[in-house]
Amino acid sequence: MIFTTRLDEQLTFIKEIDKLKDVFRNTLLMDGSRHENDAEHMWHASVAAIILVEHADNRSLDMLKVIKTLLIHDIIEVYAGDTYAYDDKGNETKDAREQEAARNIFGLLPKEQGCEFIRLWEEFETNATAEACYAKALDTFMPLWHNFCTQGKQWTKHGITCDRVLKRAEKIKSASDCLWRYSVKLIEEAVEKGYLLPAAN
Amino acid sequence: MIFTTRLDEQLTFIKEIDKLKDVFRNTLLMDGSRHENDAEHMWHASVAAIILVEHADNRSLDMLKVIKTLLIHDIIEVYAGDTYAYDDKGNETKDAREQEAARNIFGLLPKEQGCEFIRLWEEFETNATAEACYAKALDTFMPLWHNFCTQGKQWTKHGITCDRVLKRAEKIKSASDCLWRYSVKLIEEAVEKGYLLPAAN
Repeated sequence: MIFTTRLDEQLTFIKEIDKLKDVFRNTLLMDGSRHENDAEHMWHASVAAIILVEHADNRSLDMLKVIKTLLIHDIIEVYAGDTYAYDDKGNETKDAREQEAARNIFGLLPKEQGCEFIRLWEEFETNATAEACYAKALDTFMPLWHNFCTQGKQWTKHGITCDRVLKRAEKIKSASDCLWRYSVKLIEEAVEKGYLLPAAN
Repeated sequence: MIFTTRLDEQLTFIKEIDKLKDVFRNTLLMDGSRHENDAEHMWHASVAAIILVEHADNRSLDMLKVIKTLLIHDIIEVYAGDTYAYDDKGNETKDAREQEAARNIFGLLPKEQGCEFIRLWEEFETNATAEACYAKALDTFMPLWHNFCTQGKQWTKHGITCDRVLKRAEKIKSASDCLWRYSVKLIEEAVEKGYLLPAAN
């Protein structure tokens, strides 16, 4: 065997993350036909981040870092699974499950590569950098828009009210005033059209 | 409506490419359970390009350009469909179909953004830059490896011989000697194990 341990480790990781194509999110495709999987979402959010970067408030983002972050931000779900944003119980144990998953999945890589990915993921989770905030804004905007496009199928199914969606959308505010205002407009229109329940009393 | 035409155009494009999640390739997932779609493939190849870049012969690749290229390289298939690498008839009309599709899909974007994506896609198709060559190497390596992982399910189904796979894998050679040698080894092993037919006489 003439090939290096490094290459073997890298290929093992690349093979393992193929499983993300079968980790399904709560979000539906924009035509409502089925649930979206993590691989599809990471691709779509990455492309959207490239196209929409002119609407970011920060004019000097490191776009390679943004895209790396979005390409890997849900990889831990290969072991931890997807936790629905409005699943309060699932979110109680989310951090511990995801930390362990991060160690296991990124631990397959050569050490310094695994450490880089863990760092990017942690920065994303904690909004620690401008790049993480913009990546998080896209990760928040995409399902909001998917929900709008499907006439709120998942919102109505789970009885979600607009105040919860608005609160969640605030993650967009710190990275892009333009996308934030657009999101507020989407949410208002969703309530008007009956895609989303009005605020709970 | 307080939002710009630019943002509307960008969101129309981002919505339209959601359909790539339903454009299926000949390649199967690595567990052989179903066909892979274009969105999944573009994500997987992009992540692999980041991880394997140390094996590229060119030591000064612009990685943002490489990843942008891989994230968009099959977007034209939203209108042109996937053409199987070993479908000789389909490949006769592939160029014309894809050129028209490129104009239509990238034409949804604000002009300079559409032009950038068309240029990246054309460079990719013609191996015009070091970044395009490396992106093409990954785009070639991934399905080869998927096929190996599924014990050559699609190779045997279509009666593909190893000389055709080897010829196709030559696209890897100009970008990465390491991945090329690894690919040759995979192909030899695939023949030994009966995943792939020996060369036609």
